[in-house]
Amino acid sequence: MNVKGPVVIVGGGFGGLAAAHALRKAQVEIILIDRANHHLFQPLLYQVATAALSPADIAWPLRTLFRSQPNVRVVLDDVLKVDRVERRVELLHSEPISYGCLILAPGARHSYFGHQEWEADAPGLKTLSDALDLRERMLMAFERAQRVKEPEAAREYLTFVIVGGGPTGVELAGALAEIGRKAMAPDFPVFHQAEFRVLLIEGGGRILDAFPPDLSRKAQTALEKLGVTVMLNTRVSDVTAQGVLAGSRFIRSANVLWAAGNAASPILASLDEPLEAAGRVRVEQDLSLPGDPWLFVIGDAAHCVTAGGGPLPGLAPVAIQEGRYVAKVIAQGIPTGERQPFVYKDRGILATIGRAKAVALLGPFSLSGLVAWLAWCFIHVLFLIGFRNRFRVMFEWIWYYVTFKPGARLIYWKSGDKPER
Amino acid sequence: MNVKGPVVIVGGGFGGLAAAHALRKAQVEIILIDRANHHLFQPLLYQVATAALSPADIAWPLRTLFRSQPNVRVVLDDVLKVDRVERRVELLHSEPISYGCLILAPGARHSYFGHQEWEADAPGLKTLSDALDLRERMLMAFERAQRVKEPEAAREYLTFVIVGGGPTGVELAGALAEIGRKAMAPDFPVFHQAEFRVLLIEGGGRILDAFPPDLSRKAQTALEKLGVTVMLNTRVSDVTAQGVLAGSRFIRSANVLWAAGNAASPILASLDEPLEAAGRVRVEQDLSLPGDPWLFVIGDAAHCVTAGGGPLPGLAPVAIQEGRYVAKVIAQGIPTGERQPFVYKDRGILATIGRAKAVALLGPFSLSGLVAWLAWCFIHVLFLIGFRNRFRVMFEWIWYYVTFKPGARLIYWKSGDKPER
Repeated sequence: MNVKGPVVIVGGGFGGLAAAHALRKAQVEIILIDRANHHLFQPLLYQVATAALSPADIAWPLRTLFRSQPNVRVVLDDVLKVDRVERRVELLHSEPISYGCLILAPGARHSYFGHQEWEADAPGLKTLSDALDLRERMLMAFERAQRVKEPEAAREYLTFVIVGGGPTGVELAGALAEIGRKAMAPDFPVFHQAEFRVLLIEGGGRILDAFPPDLSRKAQTALEKLGVTVMLNTRVSDVTAQGVLAGSRFIRSANVLWAAGNAASPILASLDEPLEAAGRVRVEQDLSLPGDPWLFVIGDAAHCVTAGGGPLPGLAPVAIQEGRYVAKVIAQGIPTGERQPFVYKDRGILATIGRAKAVALLGPFSLSGLVAWLAWCFIHVLFLIGFRNRFRVMFEWIWYYVTFKPGARLIYWKSGDKPER
Repeated sequence: MNVKGPVVIVGGGFGGLAAAHALRKAQVEIILIDRANHHLFQPLLYQVATAALSPADIAWPLRTLFRSQPNVRVVLDDVLKVDRVERRVELLHSEPISYGCLILAPGARHSYFGHQEWEADAPGLKTLSDALDLRERMLMAFERAQRVKEPEAAREYLTFVIVGGGPTGVELAGALAEIGRKAMAPDFPVFHQAEFRVLLIEGGGRILDAFPPDLSRKAQTALEKLGVTVMLNTRVSDVTAQGVLAGSRFIRSANVLWAAGNAASPILASLDEPLEAAGRVRVEQDLSLPGDPWLFVIGDAAHCVTAGGGPLPGLAPVAIQEGRYVAKVIAQGIPTGERQPFVYKDRGILATIGRAKAVALLGPFSLSGLVAWLAWCFIHVLFLIGFRNRFRVMFEWIWYYVTFKPGARLIYWKSGDKPER
């Protein structure tokens, strides 16, 4: 390799992990920096938020993952900025780390389209901490509805509004509707079945717009069968603690969840490159920055336009393939001019709606219903790392499928013994 | 039954749960009040604190537990006081609840022997929230030791001091020593093996003083083999953020854990009864209060002197048997004069020290080593409620036994993305 100094990877998500793993036989020193101590299987995070899975079912300590890969050193820290002149990354807690080669895979947070103040009343779902917060809010909403006297107040607690009809929004809506009717209702004597509502608000003309229109329609029908109200062509113009202004109608709700937009990591601002609307960096066809051939950006942080068409979507398979591509370029020390452009092999997309309900687009095949759901289960269990988590997740799913008793319906108290609730 | 009005049970621990369950066929209305939404299997809580188990492995939503027992209503709330004149309990969030019959099973918190200010620097272990706090502290201590340059500072982070040589202290010390050397050491390149220390401080002349002296000695030897320093006859006279003053020696440590004493729930003060040193209420031989035959106190909150001798210890089997006894008295409406005194059937005590190491006193049999450990595993799995949790816990133990990779080694960020650490 013609680059001196260590390969620094920022972010232990799908992209960073794939890159580090693909470099396992390369004669390089790898430093993997993340602010969490674990890799997270984000596609199943909504199941932690809806009490079906435990955090430890879908997360792995990064140090343990690389225990048997001696060329990787894991650093737990926050990256403050990238200094391209000194070729180093600056950290919150430790000394700066110099790089010979840098792979930026910092991922994204939620975007509130310029209304960051909505976050407190409409939290999103990216980290384990987010998921546990959502779980607590959801479970406490049922408890509070039980406690209040006025039907109006109970209705507000039992109204769940999800903003954004992409995969996360659809999966959250389906899981919430199912858990509310099947798991919570039998446990609350004065459960106001009619007052429990799940609303899914989508700005565009259909949900799951990455799928073909007929699968969008099928997904919508499946959601509606579960009792979800799907509101299309509806823009959210305000969020408060009392609810959400959707189109011209104010919907009173104590539970507004955000699944509408992504904003790439703020670290990227320090690159001094033009960022596009979602905060992503435009990368070359080899995923490097213009004029900086050993600085790569991958995953949700990269705006990558391939020969095939528009920018690649923020999906785990994209990040994984990008990570592997970059690792190969580094391991073989390929100079800029000789690099083949990155090509994304699209193997399909899936979204689940509820028990035995999903939609999938796998190559030429559009699947829905039980078949799509089984494909979804199979693929997700397959991509979990290691026997322990595959086994635990499968067990929890079978358990929940049979009993409708979600395994992790727990409220922790946050602030000692007397939390505000 | 000759008492009108509902049976109110305060506390969904072992005692409260046993009482409610034993009343399942009685023609009574039962109201079970707890401030947590779950029953917790406290004997395994130290395994959540040491990252071996997930919270959902050892906790069950109370509502789900009583889903098929229609005479129980679950109320999630904090009990503020008992009003014996009006015969009702006052709650933090809801209207007071009147009782015909009251079973108080509120449990205990830690006692710092008049030094409540030590709690911040020497947290204890009673709730899931406590256990997750300890887990985070423990995991972060290793990360911080990795980050600092000075060996002195690393030593402070890698010194774990446990105050109290009872079962909780012994089990925590053993689990920490094991996890430090077997699970953490391989993952930290600059792990200072010599600097990693676990100290167990006991005020009395031996650890596990509820066991016969030879088992105490065996437990101590087993701990020492794991690398634990056991300090007997040592009183703790100060705790600060820098460490602990043990005897005349100040031990610098960033991780002081409290397992030394219990103080019964502060709710008991509202009973206007004399409380003994640990804050417990002296109950009659039928577990009722003097002159108030339908107000019972059970579990860790009760100071119950039976014909056999001293007060009963704060153990799950005591609470369970008390709960069942009280339920029987209530179901049959037995008047005070005709009640048989409560008799505790002591089936034995167990404490585990580490993988394949435990001590047990089962009737006339003193067991130690692998046999005691297998008995411990068997009994604990047996007492877990339901197939799901038995199965998950057994699976996690076998997994850990074989791989030494604890399943729940996760740090969540508490306050958004940039916690103090």
